[in-house]
Amino acid sequence: MSKVKVSTFSISLDGFGAGIKQDMTDPLGVKGEELHSWILPTKRFQMMGRKDGGTEGTDNDFVEQGLDNIGAWIMGRNMFGPVRGAWPDDEWKGWWGEDPPYHVPVFVLTHHARKPVTMKGGTTFYFVTDGIEAALEAARKAANGKDIRIGGGASTVRQYLQAGYIDELHLAVAPVFLDAGEHLFSGMDMAALGYNDVQVVAGENATHLVIRKGGKG
Amino acid sequence: MSKVKVSTFSISLDGFGAGIKQDMTDPLGVKGEELHSWILPTKRFQMMGRKDGGTEGTDNDFVEQGLDNIGAWIMGRNMFGPVRGAWPDDEWKGWWGEDPPYHVPVFVLTHHARKPVTMKGGTTFYFVTDGIEAALEAARKAANGKDIRIGGGASTVRQYLQAGYIDELHLAVAPVFLDAGEHLFSGMDMAALGYNDVQVVAGENATHLVIRKGGKG
Repeated sequence: MSKVKVSTFSISLDGFGAGIKQDMTDPLGVKGEELHSWILPTKRFQMMGRKDGGTEGTDNDFVEQGLDNIGAWIMGRNMFGPVRGAWPDDEWKGWWGEDPPYHVPVFVLTHHARKPVTMKGGTTFYFVTDGIEAALEAARKAANGKDIRIGGGASTVRQYLQAGYIDELHLAVAPVFLDAGEHLFSGMDMAALGYNDVQVVAGENATHLVIRKGGKG
Repeated sequence: MSKVKVSTFSISLDGFGAGIKQDMTDPLGVKGEELHSWILPTKRFQMMGRKDGGTEGTDNDFVEQGLDNIGAWIMGRNMFGPVRGAWPDDEWKGWWGEDPPYHVPVFVLTHHARKPVTMKGGTTFYFVTDGIEAALEAARKAANGKDIRIGGGASTVRQYLQAGYIDELHLAVAPVFLDAGEHLFSGMDMAALGYNDVQVVAGENATHLVIRKGGKG
């Protein structure tokens, strides 16, 4: 059975998954880039940008694990791009250029229908307008037994957590305060939802939490 | 100049400093004890209970550092005890028996006046009714150049943080979710308050954050 997982999801010490005021020049919001500064030097991340070098170690291992055995992605519309409301045209095709680093079907949650967009390298963006369950069902079919990775943002992760669909959640806690933004845990009853199995692993530039269902409630 | 510091303050993964429904049998609230389970096996904590043995290592080092060079304590009334409203009599003298583990003057924030209570071993509880600044001033005099430690609960720490008085904050993040309780960071602008110098240290049973003013904002 394929697992549904969140991986390499960065949060601040005060629990925010992205900063405020997201826009074209600041896709992660104010100070949101600092959340991700741990990932940039890693070998696997450098490789995604077709660069050699980069660091090995715990942080890099987590980036690799997050990309291992993934058959489909699901992401919120705000992770896909800055366009809001109805799609004005087909111009926007994600932040990642012609050959996005997914290489599998990606299901984008949106309220506005749009035809699939096929990119180079095996990535196709499908736009799902009938909710998180429908997206998950489509992703399961597409994944063909492999795992499904839920990308961001915080609101997408929160919806799947609250509905109980996530088997494994890897968070990277960056040593910064954001003060404001999209909070991951606020109003979320993680223990009540059964997520009581927590491992903590110190990385080079972030502290990693691996959270699963089970454990003592 | 003496420092004002918070030490060994445990929070959950979702940022709560104590659970809900604090009462006589559950002074830290529901599941609040789990927050502190990292501290119980440490050598220094065992020593406070006059027991031999206990673990050495990172967790224990933090407990020791938190007790080093302290000349006075400040705590909220709820840390001192479960009595609410006006003091009915002088019977309640804290959770800690005849010889509390402070051995210095302890200033208890309360809205209800009460005469000081002198205990064995150098601990005297003073009840401060005119606010956090007055308590800090009294603690500075009493500390006589040594450091001042702000105890709990979360609300006391939040007040001193927000007023900018805390020089150093050591938090121990326990690998549990509490879901509800007293939130330490909610609505608190830590970065804006200047707390941008953060060190993360992995302990045996908790992840330690040492937060100071300075660093990049």
